[in-house]
Amino acid sequence: MKGIPDIIAALRPCQSVLISVHKNPDGDALGSQLALMRALERSGKRVHAHNLDPVPEIYRFLPGVERITSGAKVAGSYDAFMVLDADPPRTGLFDGIYPAPTLINIDHHVTNPLAWPLTWLDPHATATGEMIYHLVQEMGTDIDREMALCLYTAIFTDTGSFRYTNTTPSCMRIAADLIEKGADTWLVTENVYESYTYRRIKLLGIVLSGMVRHNDDRIAHVLVTEEMYQQTGASAEDTDNFVNYVRAVKGVEVAILFRQTGKNQYKISLRSKGRVDLSAMAQALGGGGHKNAAGGVLDGSFDEVCRKVVTAAEKVLADQLGAPRA
Amino acid sequence: MKGIPDIIAALRPCQSVLISVHKNPDGDALGSQLALMRALERSGKRVHAHNLDPVPEIYRFLPGVERITSGAKVAGSYDAFMVLDADPPRTGLFDGIYPAPTLINIDHHVTNPLAWPLTWLDPHATATGEMIYHLVQEMGTDIDREMALCLYTAIFTDTGSFRYTNTTPSCMRIAADLIEKGADTWLVTENVYESYTYRRIKLLGIVLSGMVRHNDDRIAHVLVTEEMYQQTGASAEDTDNFVNYVRAVKGVEVAILFRQTGKNQYKISLRSKGRVDLSAMAQALGGGGHKNAAGGVLDGSFDEVCRKVVTAAEKVLADQLGAPRA
Repeated sequence: MKGIPDIIAALRPCQSVLISVHKNPDGDALGSQLALMRALERSGKRVHAHNLDPVPEIYRFLPGVERITSGAKVAGSYDAFMVLDADPPRTGLFDGIYPAPTLINIDHHVTNPLAWPLTWLDPHATATGEMIYHLVQEMGTDIDREMALCLYTAIFTDTGSFRYTNTTPSCMRIAADLIEKGADTWLVTENVYESYTYRRIKLLGIVLSGMVRHNDDRIAHVLVTEEMYQQTGASAEDTDNFVNYVRAVKGVEVAILFRQTGKNQYKISLRSKGRVDLSAMAQALGGGGHKNAAGGVLDGSFDEVCRKVVTAAEKVLADQLGAPRA
Repeated sequence: MKGIPDIIAALRPCQSVLISVHKNPDGDALGSQLALMRALERSGKRVHAHNLDPVPEIYRFLPGVERITSGAKVAGSYDAFMVLDADPPRTGLFDGIYPAPTLINIDHHVTNPLAWPLTWLDPHATATGEMIYHLVQEMGTDIDREMALCLYTAIFTDTGSFRYTNTTPSCMRIAADLIEKGADTWLVTENVYESYTYRRIKLLGIVLSGMVRHNDDRIAHVLVTEEMYQQTGASAEDTDNFVNYVRAVKGVEVAILFRQTGKNQYKISLRSKGRVDLSAMAQALGGGGHKNAAGGVLDGSFDEVCRKVVTAAEKVLADQLGAPRA
């Protein structure tokens, strides 16, 4: 495994750099990408940022974001290709034949298989943005107001605004430094957490008013149907994060979101409050995921699918937490 | 105006201390109160914490919270009476005749009138918890795990988990230090943001699904009726924060929550996204408040009350922001 000095040495002779991040890019991926693009350009390199998927609406405030191109094809060849916040296949680009002689991967996900010799993986970093912060400083580049905003957004979003367990003293001190360097914290908050579409909030209302609890109330589910999309003008992307409202209910250990994806097909999102491990349950249902967040897709009528998932959740609870509380 | 050395000098001869905070205590008030109680007890003093209102459910995880008494009457006399996070009348206690010869007020609200000679006011402090952090350290008391949790909760809640404009580099560095001293960040998140009652989330769903926009969509309102309480088993306290979901809608500058408080009476909560000042509007409607948060109570049918408030909001927008966007 490599580190900052290896990356700086490898980049030194490169004139042109392509930077990509994972599919469905999030705040950490995009903030890291834009801050690094700016830093490399400051040191005289030609940089192109390209991802498979376009930038989500809520991140369009990031400085430089209009320069990120998207799509399955990328023209041109480069001296270096850098993949951030993911292992290279997760970019969904190039099918393993990369357009540069120098390949650099920077990531904080412990699942990264270190496929590229020049991979810098720091699973202790809260966000890839934290790694880019250190890299840019070691490159001798001053972090300007725009870079500060990008890196702050990276850390802010990957910690759920400093709510999740990955909130470390180190990431908070970096965030403090980035505010001093000019990151406008309210601009980030307003765009990320205060810019929901009207149709999303209407849909959220309909979905939450239909919430159902099961068994001993340690399981709760909500359902999003195609009819609800028609009723509100919302679409699947508006349901992002809905399952977390269910998880936030006191006493709920397993939260379930069913999202209709066909007449008899439902996408399932599962969330745990941390006391039960959902990964085995998701695999048993033909899906996948981590301890606290997992999912899959099931065919069948809603009643069938719901019964199957709730029964599996009841088993997980019984196995891992024991009998219901009195 | 006084500071830390004056407070330490005044407390030195005191054997017994009563600490109170404002009505409807929040995370900053309670976290500050409990951390200071613990620090003073460590230096050998007898401390009693008492507030007018009981501790809200979401703060019952704070260490020592079971020792806070509540109610309009407080028995006994003390060497010192300390009021935190409010000017003394906002405690709702004692009617101006206080049960101690030494009176100390610690607050960060710029509106504090400095009525007590020994008032330490720091309007630049993000939270009173930030001030207590400095005070305890100057007292020479080590901040233990329990104090760290209380002070972290104070700063975390007063910044809306580091989302609001009052999020400063200084408060983030203190938060980082408090995590190092043992504050369990997820415990705070889970209790404050992931412990909503089922009835609250059901009510939220019903309320949001009925959201209405006005004029050019820069105004939106929601309505909570007594019938909705019956339908869900929820009550007025479950509506806390609902208006912020309305404010979070993209394009909305003025968010309005109408909460039925009688057959023909509605409590009104107003929120601005920061571009319009609501204080004059609230006063014109017979209420009060600040730039971004104001409210009042109006009598009349819902249609009358709604029309009155929406018309006032339209005027505020026209006066302060000009014509609607195209």
